[in-house]
Amino acid sequence: MRSSSPEIAFAGQLADAAGAAIRPYFRNAHGLEAKDDASPVTLADRAAEAAMRALIERAYPDDAIIGEEYGVKEGRSGRAWVLDPIDGTRAFISGRPIFGTLIALMVEGWPMLGVIDQPILKERWLGVMGQPTLFNGAPAATRRCPDLAKALLGTTSPAAFDDSQLHAFEHLDGAVMSTVLGGDCYNYGCVASGWMDIVVEANLKIHDFAALAPVIEGAGGRVCDWAGDPLTADSVGEVIASGDSARVEEIIEALACRGH
Amino acid sequence: MRSSSPEIAFAGQLADAAGAAIRPYFRNAHGLEAKDDASPVTLADRAAEAAMRALIERAYPDDAIIGEEYGVKEGRSGRAWVLDPIDGTRAFISGRPIFGTLIALMVEGWPMLGVIDQPILKERWLGVMGQPTLFNGAPAATRRCPDLAKALLGTTSPAAFDDSQLHAFEHLDGAVMSTVLGGDCYNYGCVASGWMDIVVEANLKIHDFAALAPVIEGAGGRVCDWAGDPLTADSVGEVIASGDSARVEEIIEALACRGH
Repeated sequence: MRSSSPEIAFAGQLADAAGAAIRPYFRNAHGLEAKDDASPVTLADRAAEAAMRALIERAYPDDAIIGEEYGVKEGRSGRAWVLDPIDGTRAFISGRPIFGTLIALMVEGWPMLGVIDQPILKERWLGVMGQPTLFNGAPAATRRCPDLAKALLGTTSPAAFDDSQLHAFEHLDGAVMSTVLGGDCYNYGCVASGWMDIVVEANLKIHDFAALAPVIEGAGGRVCDWAGDPLTADSVGEVIASGDSARVEEIIEALACRGH
Repeated sequence: MRSSSPEIAFAGQLADAAGAAIRPYFRNAHGLEAKDDASPVTLADRAAEAAMRALIERAYPDDAIIGEEYGVKEGRSGRAWVLDPIDGTRAFISGRPIFGTLIALMVEGWPMLGVIDQPILKERWLGVMGQPTLFNGAPAATRRCPDLAKALLGTTSPAAFDDSQLHAFEHLDGAVMSTVLGGDCYNYGCVASGWMDIVVEANLKIHDFAALAPVIEGAGGRVCDWAGDPLTADSVGEVIASGDSARVEEIIEALACRGH
């Protein structure tokens, strides 16, 4: 994708639209809950995805849409917009401004463009394969991590792992300096900006992970599954993001210990 | 403490001074690390506590100071300022703006005033025993939680619990709707503002918990230890904060299951 591709600015417009739809619901359980049986976070989720889908259907009617809330709209261009309006539902309902909107453009199943947007703090990571990742318009860069024992690892919740994944994760947890919990997609942005070293998660859906590789690889890091393979539309959702690609083999090795 | 007490405005000045000391170090590992062997978070911690101690020593030279970084300065007034310049060290080093500065004033071992301050987002909860808690100057109120099974529970990390505490926590975790991890002192602010229902933690130090009761009780909730007793200078650091005081007995009951 070229740096002049109109899809790049368009992805920013999608994030703008999602943020405008989400902000009225944040920390506002009382005022908005009554108009529907749905919770504020569900209302925000739906409003944000509907806003993005409307823009895509107008601008790129032949593209597929894969959304967390409203499912799949088939396309005929080989391209798919993958949308998670609120990644970090628990953070959202807790009043924590570190949830995010995830937007990806996949071409023939491969992610080419990704956005991680935090609409309350107005922080946005924008990644395009082959181009430098931008954080609020300025280049973002991962940091080197010469020693796994000094790495700062993030994961949203160990409860997301099944037993064998948890065993594997605990092996990695024991090999790093420190592990920070919570954070959802915001953690991947923090890796892209060089504040954290590694994020490892499992059982993510396509709308949770499609945006990650363009953001993190454009910042100098690497994203793959627990076997080291790139994430595509067919991946099972075991995700490694490492700011320093030189540490990926050791991470994979640690996660290979899935004892019973 | 009366609403006109000068200590209330003074506590705000302490938080302002801590925030000014902390902000230059946040997300700035590279620029500032070189001048000392200490990490940026340690430098920020020390700078913030030193700034607060200097203000206290000038304004209230007879008061004791209990600080996380620089220890205890004995007093002779019966009052102690309890300071945790950065609660949420891992959040700070991860680039997450949900760590906080904790400030408390204890009188004869009882917390009378508490501040939870987030210096990046410029969010501040100010609580004074017997007065309404303020969030950025406006009254904060906890929410009712009529059913424990619908409660949103927060805790920073299960790894902070010992085995029997973890067993107890898992019992509570199974009784609530949802548990969100990470968050540190920011979680207690979220309870005070009615965004979360419960926070349960263990093995907190006095500088971690002294500010909590004034903030949460002034917002309509309750803070106690796992046996239901108020938190004082002598508490062991097992903390319950509940936005709805009517749920506290059930929380204590769930946490009483410390099986082996």
